[in-house]
Amino acid sequence: MTTSTETNTRVLLRSRPVGEPTADDFEIVREPVPQPAAGEVLVRTSYLSLDPYMRGRMSAAESYAAPTGLGEVMPAGTVGEVVDSRDPSLEVGDVVLAYGGWQAYAAVPARQVRKLDPALAPVSTALGVLGMPGFTAYAGLTVLGRPQPGETVVVAAATGPVGATVGQLAKIHGARAVGIAGGPEKVAHLEELGFDAAIDHRAADFTEQLAAATPDGIDVYFENVGGAVWDAVLPRLNLYARVPVCGLVAHYNETEAPAGPDRSAALMRHVLNKSLTIRGFIQTEFVPEHHDRFLAEMGRWVTEGDVGYREDIVDGLENAPEAFIGLLKGRNFGKLIIRL
Amino acid sequence: MTTSTETNTRVLLRSRPVGEPTADDFEIVREPVPQPAAGEVLVRTSYLSLDPYMRGRMSAAESYAAPTGLGEVMPAGTVGEVVDSRDPSLEVGDVVLAYGGWQAYAAVPARQVRKLDPALAPVSTALGVLGMPGFTAYAGLTVLGRPQPGETVVVAAATGPVGATVGQLAKIHGARAVGIAGGPEKVAHLEELGFDAAIDHRAADFTEQLAAATPDGIDVYFENVGGAVWDAVLPRLNLYARVPVCGLVAHYNETEAPAGPDRSAALMRHVLNKSLTIRGFIQTEFVPEHHDRFLAEMGRWVTEGDVGYREDIVDGLENAPEAFIGLLKGRNFGKLIIRL
Repeated sequence: MTTSTETNTRVLLRSRPVGEPTADDFEIVREPVPQPAAGEVLVRTSYLSLDPYMRGRMSAAESYAAPTGLGEVMPAGTVGEVVDSRDPSLEVGDVVLAYGGWQAYAAVPARQVRKLDPALAPVSTALGVLGMPGFTAYAGLTVLGRPQPGETVVVAAATGPVGATVGQLAKIHGARAVGIAGGPEKVAHLEELGFDAAIDHRAADFTEQLAAATPDGIDVYFENVGGAVWDAVLPRLNLYARVPVCGLVAHYNETEAPAGPDRSAALMRHVLNKSLTIRGFIQTEFVPEHHDRFLAEMGRWVTEGDVGYREDIVDGLENAPEAFIGLLKGRNFGKLIIRL
Repeated sequence: MTTSTETNTRVLLRSRPVGEPTADDFEIVREPVPQPAAGEVLVRTSYLSLDPYMRGRMSAAESYAAPTGLGEVMPAGTVGEVVDSRDPSLEVGDVVLAYGGWQAYAAVPARQVRKLDPALAPVSTALGVLGMPGFTAYAGLTVLGRPQPGETVVVAAATGPVGATVGQLAKIHGARAVGIAGGPEKVAHLEELGFDAAIDHRAADFTEQLAAATPDGIDVYFENVGGAVWDAVLPRLNLYARVPVCGLVAHYNETEAPAGPDRSAALMRHVLNKSLTIRGFIQTEFVPEHHDRFLAEMGRWVTEGDVGYREDIVDGLENAPEAFIGLLKGRNFGKLIIRL
């Protein structure tokens, strides 16, 4: 139950960033806690997920989802506790996954939340390995990447919740997993997770290291960054290689097209010469057909320790803008979560 | 039977072109007619196919097939008559499809030729609508493009043997077919073939015409040219659009990457934002699974008039270099064939 003295801290989009977002693009306000309408529940946020896709929502440019309006709350998946319910399907005290946004309280339709069982796994995993990032990895790799035993799978941002899951799933499928991350600590973590090779993209000889780590070429490249990693990967893709594309975080802050030459035709020639498949996707496409199986399989793998995960938890909603700005620069180490 | 007085006219690759090929890149020689070895047949060429892929074979650069060596005969699919046989499977007088090259006679393994039935269709169609170009269209459109009733399919070089077949197959699948070609005669021919809309890529308002012809966007773009057509198509691709890539003829004569800005990242953002599938292919990939069905279905459609075709026949092997140079500039009108 909420009391009249409580307020709802919210982080709003104040302005659309040009290039890298700054703290000034966000506005932190305190407003009354909302009242749930019929069919809604009031959820008090415990954990809030920060993900690269949110950079796209801050822009007015066309993307795969509508932009967040100026003055609106920043979007986010959240885990929280039901503190008021006006729907028979949920009770006060239930822990749920919601799309509550960057705020302490959200009134949301009950049919848009999913009740979590805290006995199965820590509930914060519903934002990571057992949530949207984990499902992005699962659907993109298994439905689109289709790694075969002995093939080589490469993924960047590999200590992030998507990349780390991609690499571990590749191993489960019998493939060789090569992870790319920034800095020696992250590289060491990839080896702990069971990647066959781990490469620091900051190394001066990154391209040579990638070649050494992929002696048989690359059969699946799970694209979530773009930029220099993609440039190094493209010439090493094998005949019939698959490239699921779920993110391009290296480009999200670009304000104009990079200088020439124009390499877009060369990219298409690679596609032709190697019979490549490049396939963009958003995980929602695969929810109806694959999400139940994902929850069952991934839940078991996480419980049994076959798939590990790492969380990077930052306390306090007021720290969300700075943490998000760091996420776009690769400063997080594991799934970035704000704890309220 | 060959007689000792006959010679074999052959067109060899003399030099690797830089940019557009010229007549000097070819050498026409007269040599003795070869003798077939055991298991081979000697085929006297009647028809010789000229296709854009041959530009790739003239280059030493990596492509999907090994380059033709300097001093070697130019490669080509051919239709001809068996004039000597050292294999029990074929007799003198049989008409066969072979990969004989730009020459009047070829001694080829019997297992690498396919006997044709002149009663079923004119044998020259084995180089076009019922041959490699037709199968390229069939496999690329049906296996990779998968047009659904009511969807919009766009194809360029649409009076060529691949493009014309793509458009007519799109109609058979219940889709809207939009063809792109160069010049009013070719545009008129597309309308005769039953395309729903035909656009001249030389028109000053080409981009606007494409928009008008694709009011519901584009669901399948069958890519065989690249260049300005692709630039106009990309922004009109719908969510989940499919782009089978079988050729990039607009780029085959390029000697360096075009000037900037570099649009390759923008291309990948389109892939991500629209969940596009871009898939390179060579028809040989689909032969084992789909070629028998292709011959049966396409043979029936051609016989019954559901799929029309047009041939551009040039007489004389000595005219092959000039005809091929024109092909790369879009000067042919229909399937380009050299008749000997």
